[in-house]
Amino acid sequence: MMSRERPIRVDCLQYANWSEKVFRQMREGGVDGVHVTIAYHENFRETVQNIEQWNRWFERYPNLIFLGRTGDDLTLARETNRTAIFFGFQNPSPIEDDIGLIEVLHTLGARFMQLSYNNQSLLATGCYEAQDPGITRMGRQVIKEMNRVGLVVDMSHSAERSTLEAIEISERPIAITHANPSFWHPALRNKSNDLLRALGQSGGMLGFSVYPHHLNDGSDCTLESFCQMIAKTAELMGLERIGIGTDLCQDQPDSVVEWMRVGRWTKEIDYGEGSKNSPGFPEMPVWFQDNRDFNTIESGLLAVGFSSNEVARIMGENWRTFFDQSFGPADRQINMLDRTAAE
Amino acid sequence: MMSRERPIRVDCLQYANWSEKVFRQMREGGVDGVHVTIAYHENFRETVQNIEQWNRWFERYPNLIFLGRTGDDLTLARETNRTAIFFGFQNPSPIEDDIGLIEVLHTLGARFMQLSYNNQSLLATGCYEAQDPGITRMGRQVIKEMNRVGLVVDMSHSAERSTLEAIEISERPIAITHANPSFWHPALRNKSNDLLRALGQSGGMLGFSVYPHHLNDGSDCTLESFCQMIAKTAELMGLERIGIGTDLCQDQPDSVVEWMRVGRWTKEIDYGEGSKNSPGFPEMPVWFQDNRDFNTIESGLLAVGFSSNEVARIMGENWRTFFDQSFGPADRQINMLDRTAAE
Repeated sequence: MMSRERPIRVDCLQYANWSEKVFRQMREGGVDGVHVTIAYHENFRETVQNIEQWNRWFERYPNLIFLGRTGDDLTLARETNRTAIFFGFQNPSPIEDDIGLIEVLHTLGARFMQLSYNNQSLLATGCYEAQDPGITRMGRQVIKEMNRVGLVVDMSHSAERSTLEAIEISERPIAITHANPSFWHPALRNKSNDLLRALGQSGGMLGFSVYPHHLNDGSDCTLESFCQMIAKTAELMGLERIGIGTDLCQDQPDSVVEWMRVGRWTKEIDYGEGSKNSPGFPEMPVWFQDNRDFNTIESGLLAVGFSSNEVARIMGENWRTFFDQSFGPADRQINMLDRTAAE
Repeated sequence: MMSRERPIRVDCLQYANWSEKVFRQMREGGVDGVHVTIAYHENFRETVQNIEQWNRWFERYPNLIFLGRTGDDLTLARETNRTAIFFGFQNPSPIEDDIGLIEVLHTLGARFMQLSYNNQSLLATGCYEAQDPGITRMGRQVIKEMNRVGLVVDMSHSAERSTLEAIEISERPIAITHANPSFWHPALRNKSNDLLRALGQSGGMLGFSVYPHHLNDGSDCTLESFCQMIAKTAELMGLERIGIGTDLCQDQPDSVVEWMRVGRWTKEIDYGEGSKNSPGFPEMPVWFQDNRDFNTIESGLLAVGFSSNEVARIMGENWRTFFDQSFGPADRQINMLDRTAAE
């Protein structure tokens, strides 16, 4: 039996080729909660089909996984030795042009939605666009509705101005679930110090990515370098504002990274973070191959000087607090208020 | 302040032209729960659009209505002086040909689904078809899945053989939310004694309709005749197996009854229960015009000799018990079992 006192462990972004093997590895790695991507470019109906697929997995592997809806489900996961699965979208395509779908998809389990993925969306600008005009008219309405129902604004793939505006406009803290600071590795997907400082000051969260294109030295990045970067970011943002979001794309064929980058928006190939010579998924660092390697990251953090309490926060307790505060409706009090009024 | 000891009052079928006026009348009539039709012939996406419309009403009138999900929500409604709204479909069109949509729509609030509406469906036969071959191959699979997630099989508009087979195949009690016995008024939509006896013996429920085409003497039906019919049906089925399902279609234009009957399945007009000379909605009986008239039905039931405890059961307590037993997953115990296994 696992101790109930063990700290909560969360990975705030994965997009694996899901299988019993992967779910079992989550258990071996002691991962209580995973934010999984269920849509890249899917429209509403296609996203519902992906939810149906997840429902089949929940039905088939009830002893390994279940749908996570609240921060409390992380505790339930720990107590029942399972992993809580939290749904998210890398793109607002699932809501199409219909703001009413935000509440519908939240009811179906969605807890994170990126306002843009690399390109301009109806809501915000992606990090690969040449110009970033900021949050759009619909974007402002959508942020307000996401705040109301408890769907977290995720700006992982968005451009800088749009992200700063989202931090400003959103009345609840936002997240960058999977990215790293550009001071460490200046990729377009990584984030500036100004942005990270604003994110931290607003109560938002950054999840550190292990995806090689976001790492200094790519696939050859050392665990020590990764953990030292985390230490520097903790100084910049605050220790309470950081967690893990590996961006693990385990067992995926290269056709999937092409779908992520190209979707249906172009007839030409867009290599995104890759290149013509290496168009596929990059090789993961030796120290993080799959869900069983979270203990390795934990050891790395202890080795660069974090206390065990600090490590517990980074490995999941910070996300637990954020989930607690973010996934419920903005006004939880309505029933109680009405109850009072009725008496 | 209303006493918390007042019995629960439920109407198990309405399809009004919803408005603040109607929601206020529900409060005036002391109706704690209403099963509302949110789809006649709508496909999945159109049904979701109707759910979005309801979400706007819930947001706009939080002091009058809220989405009902469990039997407990009837108690919450009574305690907070609001009406719990339970979603249902008169046709399986919202699940299209996709069994995975059953769980998705249950998560979004659906609690009743008719397997057919007048015509043959993918699942069962409607009461206006000449032949009734019974529950189809897909129908058997759908009943099993509805049983699993807690979506009630409703056979109000289905044909006799299909209904008897549904009672037999379903592992949980089914409902006929709005119809009357044909011994009282032999309409195609009303039900035979054999069928009602089988329904009662299986633990199912019948909701008595006040829709004139289902009434002896139509719009001229007397309250006394209606209540005497209820007394006879109680003898046939058991007092615990009956409730109210008025089929109130308040404030609807006649274009709506045409949509109900014709949908998109024919280019010709089908008059359904109406006729060429009276194609529109029939006039409701003088003693039941809208939600404020439930006290009148209650008085009528007392007048034909029911005790006040029996009246309370018919007016809603029976539905409360049925809701309690029907809306949750077949296996509520999974978390507790897993919790035990983990220890």
